Amino acid sequence: MIMAQAVEGVPPVTGGDDLAALLSPGLRALTWPDGSTGMVEGDVVVVASKVVAKAERRLVAARTREELEQVIAGQTVRVVAERVRPDGSTLRIVENPQGLVLAAAGVDTSDVPLGTALLLPEDPDASARALRRGLDARLGVRPGVVVTDTVGRPWREGVTDIAIGAAGIRTLQDHRGRRDGYGRELRMTVIAAADEIAAAAELVKGKADGRPVAVVRGLGHLVTREDGEGARVLARRSEDDLFREGSAEAYARGLADGRG
Amino acid sequence: MIMAQAVEGVPPVTGGDDLAALLSPGLRALTWPDGSTGMVEGDVVVVASKVVAKAERRLVAARTREELEQVIAGQTVRVVAERVRPDGSTLRIVENPQGLVLAAAGVDTSDVPLGTALLLPEDPDASARALRRGLDARLGVRPGVVVTDTVGRPWREGVTDIAIGAAGIRTLQDHRGRRDGYGRELRMTVIAAADEIAAAAELVKGKADGRPVAVVRGLGHLVTREDGEGARVLARRSEDDLFREGSAEAYARGLADGRG
Repeated sequence: MIMAQAVEGVPPVTGGDDLAALLSPGLRALTWPDGSTGMVEGDVVVVASKVVAKAERRLVAARTREELEQVIAGQTVRVVAERVRPDGSTLRIVENPQGLVLAAAGVDTSDVPLGTALLLPEDPDASARALRRGLDARLGVRPGVVVTDTVGRPWREGVTDIAIGAAGIRTLQDHRGRRDGYGRELRMTVIAAADEIAAAAELVKGKADGRPVAVVRGLGHLVTREDGEGARVLARRSEDDLFREGSAEAYARGLADGRG
Repeated sequence: MIMAQAVEGVPPVTGGDDLAALLSPGLRALTWPDGSTGMVEGDVVVVASKVVAKAERRLVAARTREELEQVIAGQTVRVVAERVRPDGSTLRIVENPQGLVLAAAGVDTSDVPLGTALLLPEDPDASARALRRGLDARLGVRPGVVVTDTVGRPWREGVTDIAIGAAGIRTLQDHRGRRDGYGRELRMTVIAAADEIAAAAELVKGKADGRPVAVVRGLGHLVTREDGEGARVLARRSEDDLFREGSAEAYARGLADGRG
């Protein structure tokens, strides 16, 4: 059994805020269907990267489309694929410094003051660890922490939340060695558990209604005493990826090479 | 608040079984943290495609690697990308007749008798609708139904569950027109809600321990009276996809064209 609920009453977050301090009242006030309140060991706190980034002063000026393009370029390690939209702007899917493949490098222009843009946290795993420490100190429980972002995906319509930072979570749940009912080793063996937690939390968080934090209960088997390796291990190395480059980009490179 | 739990006591499923009949006792026996039992309107039943396919007699002979390759070829509309594995076998990511992009066309050789392979349901949305009707008739509530499969993804390590069939679910949750706190239209506007439900359910289902069904409570706003358009709308048309073809495949095609 898992339960997930949004945390109510999270105030607007601004640069320099102590997230653990801001979230603690709402976490203490949680009420659960069995009548219990607050947090227990094994709970997972899931936080939208947006509020983490705001607290970490990742808001930058972007007054014009050109300035915004420069901001995105500064967060771009490698352009993966591009497409010009009907309105003339360019959708650019890039790899960012954390190895995440994201539209516009995850730079966010919604729910931020006009003329600004919000970068992703510089090290979301470190952000998750810091929040975990802060919550432990204030609440006396050490929850798992997942920092999420909302992304599009090849082959699938619609966006989902994924884990871009984590602390105290088995981000990859390894079933290798377990066997099926016929004694054969399981094929689908490593579950991206932190991404599934992010997705489950999205179902109760709000996109635009000021509920950027949720708590998931019932996943104690995925919560670890140590902070662990974080969400970084969920980002596949581009060398290992069959889709490291957009189809049109790869074709164009081949065409140019073929023409010599 | 959402709650999700696996359904206990689902017996092994074989060809011709009535899934609604098999699942009903376990669904009636559910107990919830608030003390309630069974199912209520607005609940979502999430079923692994494996048991749906078994009930629908989708088990076929595949005695040798060659026969298995032929089975997969029969489920392949288009090869998207290939890679030879260290053991000499080939990982082949293909588009299947439902427009899903999947390794081995979703043909499953785990947890099936030796010498056989399991195809995906022929029309998973129809499977979901049929199960919904059957559950309505037996339980007197008409839940949403999601049929899941486990898939790998570009750019991300680990597998997750996605929705390949659905009935009575807003598979895509459209926030277009909603505005952020600054009055601008939301950018990430269409949520792949059915995929997030599949992911949440995976956290409580078991891979190898005979718990292929879960119920998610608390998503009544996503459950519809009509069966709706199903999960088919989650599969992006390949013409619209920037990653319709593997990077190496696209490059090779460009190279050949360039050489004329």
